[in-house]
Amino acid sequence: MKVEILKENLKAGLNIVEKIVGKNPSLPILDNVLIDTEDSFLSLSSTDLETAIKLWILTKIVKKGKVVVPAKFFSNFVSLLPNEKIVLEEKNQGIYVECGSFKNQIQGFNPEEFPLIPEFNNLEFIEVDNRKFCQGLSQIVDIAAPSQSRPEISGIYFIFSKNLIKIVATDSFRLAEKNIMIEGDLRDFSKKEISFILPQKPARELINILGEKEGKVKIYFSASQIMFEFPMKDTPRPQVQVISRLIEGEYPNYEEIIPKKFKTHVIVKRDEFLNQIKAAALFSGKINEIKIKVNPQNKELEIFAQDQGLGESKSSVPAKIEGEEMEVSFNYKFLSDGLINIKSSEVIFDLSKEEGPCILKPVGDASYIYVVMPIKSTQA
Amino acid sequence: MKVEILKENLKAGLNIVEKIVGKNPSLPILDNVLIDTEDSFLSLSSTDLETAIKLWILTKIVKKGKVVVPAKFFSNFVSLLPNEKIVLEEKNQGIYVECGSFKNQIQGFNPEEFPLIPEFNNLEFIEVDNRKFCQGLSQIVDIAAPSQSRPEISGIYFIFSKNLIKIVATDSFRLAEKNIMIEGDLRDFSKKEISFILPQKPARELINILGEKEGKVKIYFSASQIMFEFPMKDTPRPQVQVISRLIEGEYPNYEEIIPKKFKTHVIVKRDEFLNQIKAAALFSGKINEIKIKVNPQNKELEIFAQDQGLGESKSSVPAKIEGEEMEVSFNYKFLSDGLINIKSSEVIFDLSKEEGPCILKPVGDASYIYVVMPIKSTQA
Repeated sequence: MKVEILKENLKAGLNIVEKIVGKNPSLPILDNVLIDTEDSFLSLSSTDLETAIKLWILTKIVKKGKVVVPAKFFSNFVSLLPNEKIVLEEKNQGIYVECGSFKNQIQGFNPEEFPLIPEFNNLEFIEVDNRKFCQGLSQIVDIAAPSQSRPEISGIYFIFSKNLIKIVATDSFRLAEKNIMIEGDLRDFSKKEISFILPQKPARELINILGEKEGKVKIYFSASQIMFEFPMKDTPRPQVQVISRLIEGEYPNYEEIIPKKFKTHVIVKRDEFLNQIKAAALFSGKINEIKIKVNPQNKELEIFAQDQGLGESKSSVPAKIEGEEMEVSFNYKFLSDGLINIKSSEVIFDLSKEEGPCILKPVGDASYIYVVMPIKSTQA
Repeated sequence: MKVEILKENLKAGLNIVEKIVGKNPSLPILDNVLIDTEDSFLSLSSTDLETAIKLWILTKIVKKGKVVVPAKFFSNFVSLLPNEKIVLEEKNQGIYVECGSFKNQIQGFNPEEFPLIPEFNNLEFIEVDNRKFCQGLSQIVDIAAPSQSRPEISGIYFIFSKNLIKIVATDSFRLAEKNIMIEGDLRDFSKKEISFILPQKPARELINILGEKEGKVKIYFSASQIMFEFPMKDTPRPQVQVISRLIEGEYPNYEEIIPKKFKTHVIVKRDEFLNQIKAAALFSGKINEIKIKVNPQNKELEIFAQDQGLGESKSSVPAKIEGEEMEVSFNYKFLSDGLINIKSSEVIFDLSKEEGPCILKPVGDASYIYVVMPIKSTQA
């Protein structure tokens, strides 16, 4: 292999593939990046065996071939090179790098030992607006939590139907659902609804890698894997592919736990409510408990927390209230996570009963709903 | 105690005094800030028993008194309050805080248990330009290193003479000296030279706290302590005092180890040299070894490093060279630390002999000198 490539292009590619590379003492080959040539493209690949990333860079290929070198080390090294043309050459099962006055030999591994990156070339795909998809996913992705006993809820649940994508996550204390409407018809290639559970880590990487890109992302399905592919304009290769295994199992029938009836309906300013929750949180003790009293008479939410050692906090925020007075205790983190994922200036806060699920959602946007369970109050 | 104070003024003060507050399970009173009133000033004090910080804020004092509350907790809490007037009131050996719709009681400690902050009121002082002093100190402070066997070199050495301040630090592998010329005569108040060893931590805090302030800093001495005081314009109280104990013992006669004669004199561009050292550093192995060859024939420095597992690096940077060809091995970190503290675009690099001390200094600025010991080469 011998190629010529601009430093900034190589660095940008390495920044992406190194994201899923960790330290794998038992399988050190996973700490590496596979550098390969395909026609006039250099490709970079990495994998942690759950997720794989592959990307292509259009550049000058002098001689075909492939090498495998330590990903983070190579990336750190390239970032110290001057902003010039780099010549990469396969040498002694490693890579020889020349750039300006730098001449470097980096030891590598046998490319045959590198795990295969799955290919999806012959399957059908669906296409969705990338930013809309990533923004929706980012409102959901942090709600899931690792669970050994129930692996299916440790991932993000997707349902693709006629012209709608639903994205759902829960950690059994709270649940969030985002609906993304799609122009055109998603179901062209398949008559049935498609659903799958994506692990949380590749979902996060997808947002990191694709989040800001304008355009359409292609999604390829198979029984156990999924591929997100972002195209490269006017070329026969994509820019980047993120491939992940899916979580087996059936996602719980989550719609059952979204309450439909409420005793009290509140509209409150998001920033003010969030800030008062954060201040009360300092006094919320080991179980993060804050108490919220809905006071229809004073037209305000009262926020209260008390810690034996530190002191107590009481504050209030004006609110539009319909329904009964109510006092409910929450883990402050579950409330603030919901508010942080809501981007509107006012939020709807619906309470069903003292120990029943409550709902947070944006005013003027029906696409997002956040359900949170209260905690049994320990305070008198 | 009852005072009224603007949130931003209280927050700015807490940001400073909390810097030296850590977690002291054996002496929890040190985790606190002492809040006191003096005439129309609120004062905040903290101490770790080595260093003390005290500062004054001009504000409305309704009722005199003092309280002691957890410093970081109180600071975190205040940062969440709205940008408005805060009322602080002593209540139940704690502080009651009212701000907008917030009402909070924070538990405190008995103020009588708070350690005394030393006072220097009746001693003479010397005055120096604050930014010049802090900038000079910042070029030196990171060179010192903790040493149990030789505590005197774990601190920063200061010598105040007629119109010159020398600041020195070493970790026995390298040494840096900064000379600050002072207008006027420092020695007015004392006929002899004054020298002392300041621990590294308060020296760093001094730069953090005073670094950007325009004006003169007053320095008060006693046999075992020192105080740096920055004035508050047109008021009878200073803005802030940093008080520290001094390290006992005699600083080594460091001037002996600064070489006076050299075999080879090099002038090289700082950024290019530093960047090539950083790249070579990736291949420098466990002992951080890089080799530098001064090549007068090619008019360049060659930088070389080799790691059995990772590979090797070779680069070169053009240089003006007088004297002999030479090849010297260094701990890359000791070279890069020196270059980072030199701000000129070109640096002088003087080499005495293969295993003798070398010197780095800025071109066109005689006030800074950095001495570095080579390492015995392990490479063939």
